[in-house]
Order: sequence, then structure tokens, then C-alpha cells
Amino acid sequence: MLKPKVRIAVDAMGGDYAPQEVIKGIVAACREDDEIEAILVGPEPALKNEVIRLDGESLPIHYLHTEECLREGEPPALAFRQKRHASIIIATSLVKSGDADAVVSAGPTGGVVTSAMMLLGTMAGIERPALGGPFIGFSPNTVLVDNGGNIDCKPYHLLNFATIGVVYAKTVLGIVNPRVALLSIGAEEGKGNSLVKEAYPLLKESGLNFIGNVEGNDLVEGRAEVVVCDGYIGNILLKFCEGMGLATANWIRNRLEGQLPANQVEEVYTQLIRLTNMADEGGGAPLLGINGIAMVMHGRSRAPQFVSVTAQVKRLVQSGFVASLAQELDQTKGGNNDRQ
Amino acid sequence: MLKPKVRIAVDAMGGDYAPQEVIKGIVAACREDDEIEAILVGPEPALKNEVIRLDGESLPIHYLHTEECLREGEPPALAFRQKRHASIIIATSLVKSGDADAVVSAGPTGGVVTSAMMLLGTMAGIERPALGGPFIGFSPNTVLVDNGGNIDCKPYHLLNFATIGVVYAKTVLGIVNPRVALLSIGAEEGKGNSLVKEAYPLLKESGLNFIGNVEGNDLVEGRAEVVVCDGYIGNILLKFCEGMGLATANWIRNRLEGQLPANQVEEVYTQLIRLTNMADEGGGAPLLGINGIAMVMHGRSRAPQFVSVTAQVKRLVQSGFVASLAQELDQTKGGNNDRQ
Repeated sequence: MLKPKVRIAVDAMGGDYAPQEVIKGIVAACREDDEIEAILVGPEPALKNEVIRLDGESLPIHYLHTEECLREGEPPALAFRQKRHASIIIATSLVKSGDADAVVSAGPTGGVVTSAMMLLGTMAGIERPALGGPFIGFSPNTVLVDNGGNIDCKPYHLLNFATIGVVYAKTVLGIVNPRVALLSIGAEEGKGNSLVKEAYPLLKESGLNFIGNVEGNDLVEGRAEVVVCDGYIGNILLKFCEGMGLATANWIRNRLEGQLPANQVEEVYTQLIRLTNMADEGGGAPLLGINGIAMVMHGRSRAPQFVSVTAQVKRLVQSGFVASLAQELDQTKGGNNDRQ
Repeated sequence: MLKPKVRIAVDAMGGDYAPQEVIKGIVAACREDDEIEAILVGPEPALKNEVIRLDGESLPIHYLHTEECLREGEPPALAFRQKRHASIIIATSLVKSGDADAVVSAGPTGGVVTSAMMLLGTMAGIERPALGGPFIGFSPNTVLVDNGGNIDCKPYHLLNFATIGVVYAKTVLGIVNPRVALLSIGAEEGKGNSLVKEAYPLLKESGLNFIGNVEGNDLVEGRAEVVVCDGYIGNILLKFCEGMGLATANWIRNRLEGQLPANQVEEVYTQLIRLTNMADEGGGAPLLGINGIAMVMHGRSRAPQFVSVTAQVKRLVQSGFVASLAQELDQTKGGNNDRQ
């Protein structure tokens, strides 16, 4: 039996290399996987020409015409009011109306997040959606939440992130009883900044499989499947990981030059980049905790990132992530319904 | 002309492998470098026997007898009042009295910090001393302050850390006009958590060579010589760096097995550990901003770490770090004398 197709609304005008690289990626994704269907949102004639140029006219790719888009640096809330026909807003509306299962965009992050929050809304029990997912290939089952969506968090936000992470680990990664930990500077309760210290009892009483604090090195060692932190540190860690991965890969390439055949050196380099730049490799991070699926991609995304992101979307859609999270929030203390 | 010796008071009872590994390291350091002189603080007969066993009786090693020491887990302030003859307190007193240039200890961090603050005191203009130094070999001239000493900081603490880092970069690393940056999640002013946003104007008006915010990857890329952050994130980054370095080194060792001769694989492994575990390799971090030099070492330090730490001490002493920092604090706005 054929599974229903995963319908992805694509902001074809979002990103530094839009629309060419967006379309190239989407065409490749639809060609590789016949469960993917795409709706390209942007200037229809230009988009269609590009698809035809890539011999993609027989693929399940549809169009929704608009000529407006958001620019980097525009205040997202203002743009949201003034540019109602912006590609990201129209693409997100397709998820709202049920005509698409997910929206993906490499446009300005603020625009993607604002559109998702305004049009789809956050789930009951969630105050702020989070960005999260596995981020280092040495520990591919460790989900870091939040990795940049929320700065200056309150303790109950960390509880939200934990719940989001647990449902992600269960549904997307297939982990039965994910261990949850707070990112801190020592294992003992009472270690950490005031945010961590105040979040500790909330997590302890949450009914989640909370194992206490973990430290920076534990992120790599797989001590927990869900590690929760403020988006300020999450984002810094993510970028540090990418930078260190790149520096290490460059170092190892120089170090092995002349000792191994060039193609083998290149293979080691590429594997190491893949292990340490997972967010780039995955194409982007899902915004978790909204009524729908929205993928936030780097502005510098190219075709391979659009291919990867559709694979992520498919996993999120087919695993039933959104419905599972709604259920978890409804049945446990993982939401903030109870907070004072 | 012979330089005056650098006199190091050593807490011979501090650390998981005290006193054997402490003494082994100190004996090796004095043997390698005739500018080092040590005063071992602990149970004199046992220490002396160990030095003799290592054929070190002709080295410039002195003893100060005590049998008391601090234990991991003791509240440091209480221990400080109740155990006046603890080895770390006596060793720090030697710096206070001018009989030693520095104190080094692998005992409980809280004990080392409390002893330094109570006996030596923080410098005028500094509210809280910081732990700092270069931490990743890919960018050996980037000093990260604070890397674990201060959790829940105020904006003017970050200004203090910047001043401390600048003087460290100038005196210890020999950098003429170190660039200073705040660790954040975007380059633009206004990006970051509330701490970073409030610290930004203070740094801008400090007279330091402030270049704005840098992101996680910039730590590896050497965008600034001094990167300032809260000790919570600094410590997490430091440990993440060590963990990721170890995971990468293990991965590369497995990856190259059978492709290169075993000794060459081992060499790559060791070099990578050295590049990514600088704090371990350096033996510890200096507590900066006190009237004197105190080195905080890992509890698990062994002889090689004690050798490395004496080299660090020597650089700090001979570069005149403490006097330079006093002068900088006196002449600039880098202290918190002006704060309301």
C-alpha cells in the first residue's frame, strides 16, 4: 500500500541562493523519494521555468504564486503585518489550511518563527516553541533543546524543552524511555546558574525520566538522550561544535597529506565534517512546539540542504511528532499549564 | 646574569594522586628548569622520603610541615575557619608573606579560591577573580575569561573579565593590542542574552580594543584574543571542547587503524588531544584578579600536569602579570571602581 505523500510547502524565495538552489534541491528530493510532494511558493513563471530546465515537470511539484518576500534585517513582526503576501507567510498558511504537512524556509529565521507562531500557534501548554535536535554525530541520539530559539529563559521553559525533546527522541529517534538532563557545570543538584537550579525541581517532579545535571563533555558521550538548556548557550555550543569540527577536519587534512592517498584524506575530512556539522548536514532545525511542522534553515543553504531537510520533514510527519507532543503535554506535567 | 628563581608553594596534599604524583611532577619540574624552586606543604617526613626516593635531595625543594588538608565536598568557607593548618591555607600564606611567588593546588577548587580570596584578596577594582586562559590549540592566542569561576554574573563582571583577559594576552602571550569580544549569538549589538546586551555598552566605553560580539565558531577561528563570558557557559564550553576532542581523537584513531603504522596513528591521536585538551595539558587555570598567583588544578592531575603548571606559573610571574593588571585597573575604566 502506498503511504500518503508528505506535502511540503517550500518558501522558494527564502535564502541566499533562492530560488535556484531551493528548486534544485526540491527537484532532487522529489526525484529521489516518491513520497515527497512539494508546493513552491514564489513567482510562478520563474519557478516553473527552472523546474522545466531541470527536467522536473513530471514530478509532484505544484506552485503558488507570489512576488513578495521577507528580507534579512526586517523586523519580523512588522513585516508580518505589512507583507501579507510574503512567500513565507503564504507557505505557512498552507500548513494552517491543511494543504501542506510542513513548511520549509531558508529565509530570515525571525520571519519563519513569527509566521509559524502567528498562523499555526504554539501548542497548549507550550509558551515558546524551541529549536532542537541531535547536533553531534559522535552522539547521534542526544537531542539538544533549545539550540537558539529562546534567549533568557525561565525555569518552566526548560521544562517545556524537556517535554519537547522527549517526544522528539521517542517519535523521531525511536528511543523508548529517553533520559533527560539539564546542562550544567557539575552533576550534583545545586550546581549551575540560577536558571538551572530553579528548573531542577520542576524536572524532578515532571514524571519525565530525569537523571539530573550533565556537563559539557557528557553531550558528546551520550549520557542522556535529551539535554535541556537556554537557547543562548545552545546556540553558542552548536556553532562552537561546527567551528571546532571544521578546524579539526582542516588540521587532519593537512596532517595526513602525503601519508595517505588524496582521495582517502578527503574522505576522512568529509566524514568528520558530517559528524560535527549535523545541523548543516540536516539542512536545518525544526521549530518544535507549534501546531504544525516548520523547518528553520540556514540562509546559506544550498540544494543538498534542501534534500536533507525534506528527509527530516518526512520523519517528523510520518512519526506523528505533533500529535504525540500534544498528547504528552495533555497527559503529563511537561507543559506549563500548572505554573503559577 | 641569573634570573631570580620562581618560588612555588605547592599544596602537596591536594589532588586525587597526592602526594606521590605531586612530588614526582615537582621533582621533574625542578630538574628540568633551574629557575624553579618549590616549597612542598604537607607531612614533611613523608614528602622528604619521597623526594629522596626520586633522587631529588639536591634540588631546590623545601618543606613546610602540616598534617591537615581540605577534603572534596567540605564547604570551603567553613573549612577555611576550622582548618587553619590545612595545606592549601599554609601554602597560600607563603604567597601572602612574600616567601613564595605563587601557589599551586590540585585540592578542592573551592578551597583554593577561598584561600586566595581570603588571604591574598582581590585587586582593587575587581569584585570577583576569574579563571581564564587559552583553551583550544587551534586558536592558541584566544583567551577565554571566565571559564568556570563565576556563575550568574553581572555586566560589570564581564568588564572585569575583559580587563583581566587583556592583561593576560599582553603580558603572557605578548600580544600588543588584544581584540576583545563578548561571546554571543550574533555579531550585531543587541544580539545576545540580557547579560551580554547590558555588558556591551560597558565594554564599548571601556577604552579596551572592543570589537563587539563573536559567536561560538569564532572562538576557534581566532577572531579575538580575549573572549568574555559568564563562567557557566565558559565551563560548559571548556568541557564540551575536551569531550569533543577526545571523541574526535578516538574516532580518528579507529578510522586510521590499519591505514597508517600504529605509531603514526598514536601520534595523530596524541596531537589532537593536546590541541583540544589545553587546560588538562597546561595542568590548570590561573585564578586571575587576586593579589598574587594561584593555580587551580584538576583533582585528577598527575605528574605531567604539575610539570606543565610550573611552566605556566613561571610565565605569569616573569611577565609581571599581577603588577600589569594592577596598573591597567588603576589607569583605565576596566575595573568596577566607577560603577554605581
